[in-house]
Amino acid sequence: MNVQTQIDTTTEDLMANAIRALAMDAVQAANSGHPGAPMGLADVATVLFNRFMRVDPAADKWPDRDRFVMSAGHGSMLLYAINHLLGYDDMGIDQIRNFRQLGSRTAGHPEYGHAKGIEVTTGPLGQGISSAVGMALAERMANARFGDDLVDHFTYVIAGDGCLMEGISHEAIDFAGHYRLGRLIVLWDDNRITIDGSTDISTSTDQQARFAAAGWHVLAVDGHDKAAIAEAIAAARADARPSMIACRTVIGYGAPNKQGSHSVHGAPLGADEVAATRGALGWSHAPFEVPGAVYDAFHAIAARGRDARQDWEKRLGGHPKQDAFETAQANPDARALDAAMGAYKAKLAQDAPKVATRKASEMALEVVNATLPNTVGGSADLTGSNLTFTRGMRDVVAGDFTGNYIRYGVREHGMAAIMNGIALHGGFVPYGGTFLVFADYMRGAMRLSALMGLRVIYVLTHDSIGLGEDGPTHQPVETLASLRAMPNMMVFRPADAVETAEAWQAALELETTPSVLSLSRQGLPTLRTSHSDANLTARGAYVLREADGARDVTLIATGSEVEIALAAAEMLAADGIRAAVVSAPCFEAFAQQPDAYRATVLGDAPRVGVEAAVRQGWDALIGTGGAFVGMTGFGASAPAEALYQHFGITADAVAAAAKSLIKET
Amino acid sequence: MNVQTQIDTTTEDLMANAIRALAMDAVQAANSGHPGAPMGLADVATVLFNRFMRVDPAADKWPDRDRFVMSAGHGSMLLYAINHLLGYDDMGIDQIRNFRQLGSRTAGHPEYGHAKGIEVTTGPLGQGISSAVGMALAERMANARFGDDLVDHFTYVIAGDGCLMEGISHEAIDFAGHYRLGRLIVLWDDNRITIDGSTDISTSTDQQARFAAAGWHVLAVDGHDKAAIAEAIAAARADARPSMIACRTVIGYGAPNKQGSHSVHGAPLGADEVAATRGALGWSHAPFEVPGAVYDAFHAIAARGRDARQDWEKRLGGHPKQDAFETAQANPDARALDAAMGAYKAKLAQDAPKVATRKASEMALEVVNATLPNTVGGSADLTGSNLTFTRGMRDVVAGDFTGNYIRYGVREHGMAAIMNGIALHGGFVPYGGTFLVFADYMRGAMRLSALMGLRVIYVLTHDSIGLGEDGPTHQPVETLASLRAMPNMMVFRPADAVETAEAWQAALELETTPSVLSLSRQGLPTLRTSHSDANLTARGAYVLREADGARDVTLIATGSEVEIALAAAEMLAADGIRAAVVSAPCFEAFAQQPDAYRATVLGDAPRVGVEAAVRQGWDALIGTGGAFVGMTGFGASAPAEALYQHFGITADAVAAAAKSLIKET
Repeated sequence: MNVQTQIDTTTEDLMANAIRALAMDAVQAANSGHPGAPMGLADVATVLFNRFMRVDPAADKWPDRDRFVMSAGHGSMLLYAINHLLGYDDMGIDQIRNFRQLGSRTAGHPEYGHAKGIEVTTGPLGQGISSAVGMALAERMANARFGDDLVDHFTYVIAGDGCLMEGISHEAIDFAGHYRLGRLIVLWDDNRITIDGSTDISTSTDQQARFAAAGWHVLAVDGHDKAAIAEAIAAARADARPSMIACRTVIGYGAPNKQGSHSVHGAPLGADEVAATRGALGWSHAPFEVPGAVYDAFHAIAARGRDARQDWEKRLGGHPKQDAFETAQANPDARALDAAMGAYKAKLAQDAPKVATRKASEMALEVVNATLPNTVGGSADLTGSNLTFTRGMRDVVAGDFTGNYIRYGVREHGMAAIMNGIALHGGFVPYGGTFLVFADYMRGAMRLSALMGLRVIYVLTHDSIGLGEDGPTHQPVETLASLRAMPNMMVFRPADAVETAEAWQAALELETTPSVLSLSRQGLPTLRTSHSDANLTARGAYVLREADGARDVTLIATGSEVEIALAAAEMLAADGIRAAVVSAPCFEAFAQQPDAYRATVLGDAPRVGVEAAVRQGWDALIGTGGAFVGMTGFGASAPAEALYQHFGITADAVAAAAKSLIKET
Repeated sequence: MNVQTQIDTTTEDLMANAIRALAMDAVQAANSGHPGAPMGLADVATVLFNRFMRVDPAADKWPDRDRFVMSAGHGSMLLYAINHLLGYDDMGIDQIRNFRQLGSRTAGHPEYGHAKGIEVTTGPLGQGISSAVGMALAERMANARFGDDLVDHFTYVIAGDGCLMEGISHEAIDFAGHYRLGRLIVLWDDNRITIDGSTDISTSTDQQARFAAAGWHVLAVDGHDKAAIAEAIAAARADARPSMIACRTVIGYGAPNKQGSHSVHGAPLGADEVAATRGALGWSHAPFEVPGAVYDAFHAIAARGRDARQDWEKRLGGHPKQDAFETAQANPDARALDAAMGAYKAKLAQDAPKVATRKASEMALEVVNATLPNTVGGSADLTGSNLTFTRGMRDVVAGDFTGNYIRYGVREHGMAAIMNGIALHGGFVPYGGTFLVFADYMRGAMRLSALMGLRVIYVLTHDSIGLGEDGPTHQPVETLASLRAMPNMMVFRPADAVETAEAWQAALELETTPSVLSLSRQGLPTLRTSHSDANLTARGAYVLREADGARDVTLIATGSEVEIALAAAEMLAADGIRAAVVSAPCFEAFAQQPDAYRATVLGDAPRVGVEAAVRQGWDALIGTGGAFVGMTGFGASAPAEALYQHFGITADAVAAAAKSLIKET
């Protein structure tokens, strides 16, 4: 335990005040931002970093570092101030001066990847604490595989009232309690203020009782009593359960006329109050000037981290599990994956199974999970529907983290945020399943997968009216469009077992992009019966069936509707009309292809789009004058075949649309 | 209190078994559905309806009826069986026979509006309990206005483990505890089974302690002990707090070989087990045959409801508040609204204020709230940002429900579901605010607003990179497209104060469609300086500035970018290029216009789209070969003006795109 026993409390007071001064001055300079949280939390953060945190600014990605998550992301200046004082080389004082300005690393909210020492993008409330649960889970899973010598760290979270009011916090807290994630320590900024005023106006929950009900170890301290804070953190580290420490703080601590009020939450203090705060804190330094003693104290923290990191590197060197550890940290072995998937695809082309693409996903996952050592599966209580659990997988359970399958419970949003945390922690490639329509429940966290550029794979089954009787509440019609709209999110909707295998392969090889696999409930024939080594799905769209001669029409379809387009092409051929069929499993990938390839695939003939979903997003493919066969509103409850007939998504309808287009031109 | 004191328990056993038989036989006939929950809950539901519920199948919309919410919507057969037995005239036995078939009222999950006696669409877990909170809130708010004689009813909820694991339940439960909604009674189906197996595999939460921590009255009973259930419900009704009754049940109760297991959750029992269940329950009747004694008992419940309804009607007739009560129940007075908004718009055209559209929304709301008596405002802790609180509004607080403004707390998803519940209850028109980007947090409930066709108005401010320094976590770029993709959701993005007023007017006059108002943080000039009585925004798009002669190009923009398009048109005019500017505040409304109007607005010239968001959805407007000036990825943290420059959303860029298009053609 890297805990200092002799603490210079005078210096700690200075350290905390340095954080306060940097925060209020940066917000004042930007004329924008949130001084209240950093000022209120300065004592808590100082104690945490000075006495406990083990990070090395010179090796910010060191795998066994402690994680610090500023879940109350609007308090970003707390993190920036600390990282500046610790000496991260990309967080010089100019970054602090340029808080919230274009091109600076000090964005309004902490952005993962924008600067070292930012473990996760926060700001949307509740996400940080939930992703921290994923980090703490990944730590125990890695520990179970590699032992205490290589994996032995804590995840600390600062969460505000807002984080704890958000629903996602419930999912994360229950999950952490169930899995007994003892390495997770949440410091709750109990300042009793939200943007609208006192927390009394909107909540009466006893947070300590709430966490206890979820199986947590709960403590409460005065958030400005450094000895008490230290004692609580030490007790939290010693407890086998996840710990929540309620830190009673005064928001904007130090601002004599504004502290304790919501006026200090999200606006600069103003020049007068900044001056008054300097007086109240006895802080005589100019803005952005920090006494050497403060830098020295923070650099001592960094030195402690460096020593720990060097010790760890010694333990890793020559460790019997060194290779396995490093493999887990690295990108998936694309060569091994390509070889395994190539062989599997060749067999599929021969066997031509008729299976739902959710089943095809399970089959592909059998190959993936046998090839890659560090995939971690799971489902939000729909394992038997999503088919995410392959042979040989074992559940991760409290007390035994050697497994590789996670029962996320009925917690879609929590699942997505926890997967973000697993990916951020490193060492694992997470995938998790639910129904496609319930992407709506976890969209907040999916957006952060995309914004952070994390390899997280969403296995979203039951992807259209083809799910049948469960009805419109469960039938996505707008969900594909809503996900395709999201930047840096790849949406794969494979048509058969071969495309499903290719989609998995493509998703796993994308280093900085999350993926959605949109999969059918209903059975679909294998359409790609001639084997190709190339990953055609990764191109986004390709000609599945060329016309017999110059094209009269091009039919473009995705997923379960490609079969319908092929049938329509056959019907049209019988009438002497030459139709090509384009399978378009990934619009985003197709948009990235060279113009020449795109032109070849799309052709010059009129185009008909086919997808059991709304039209939005299709016009760019089918062009002005193109036709679309799909949904115009919500679905209905009935067997799948009846619904396809009812909503007119049939080969007949596609052929009719094609003929009508040809007639027009 | 309409509680029978002498209960024929033998008949209640029969009633419960009739529900079980109908549920298992309907699921068996459909070969699809969820028998476990209805069979496990039959005793609880029988006691609730037989001894407490006050509904009248002959007047299903009677305002003072008790509400029953089947939050565990997959157990829909419980509700259908009860409504059939009660004698709702649209729920004959053929509906039960045709469970989950095309065109039947008995959809897989209960669909509001598909049959009488379905108070809310459920199935997506956690939504029912959360909307029930809105119903219970609306009941107290109406009671505060009209008194016990006119408003005095309960909201009962059956919720499963899944509902309580979902994050939204946290938001709803905390809210209900804070507002002390004593008329809300939740019966938790504590069967300890989820789809994946025992609840032990994914949760350890002490639900009773959890509800107690949120200020609820908590009870626990054997869910098959009818006397105990009745006693608990009576105690719950008597308590001033919301009540949660943990009903320990056996899922699939009565199926001798399958009960208590997850195999009975979501699949037919099978012919053998159906037969065995008949034996175990001593139920000798053929499928869909119910003994007369059971019908008699349920019809007695209906008669009790009819009597209560008739008594209520007598109280209403001649009541001093009769007119006010009926006005509140009816649609908003469009004539009054049109008159008030017409006068307001005329003044705006004259004054031409430069204000953010969020501020313009506040100004419009001043008019709306002064005109309509029953709007209910609120915000998810962003009142000062969303500007949803107008002069004279008062907070609704626990113990005093006379106010008309709700502090939803940091609970977007809960807010949306609660607004659904308020709209479903009737008597109020709810609107609520948060940042546009956080639509992602509440999309699950917004989808239900749309699917149910509820007049719920989402006030979503800070609608682009124009919010500035808060950065990409807070800057929507794909959110507009994702909301436009949703069927039956109107997305208004007004360009100035006039369009904002029109958007409010249009949204309030839509009877069966929810609306989003997408509003700027930054100030915008009034562009519509010549007054028009007609609501141009309600047409979706219109020519704001016609070209001086035949159009060379049409610039189409929304919201804050219309100002940019106008500036570009001026620049182009200086170069002798004739550009029209089309303001397109609502794509959905424009899609509904006659073709001739659409053609006139769009014109024949090449088109440039301008929106500080992703392109998806624009191709349908700008056509093949059209140009788009907008975002291609996530935003950044900086002042708004710097971001517009950085991302190239400027009049210069629009003019350049227009010129480039004209050169091509």
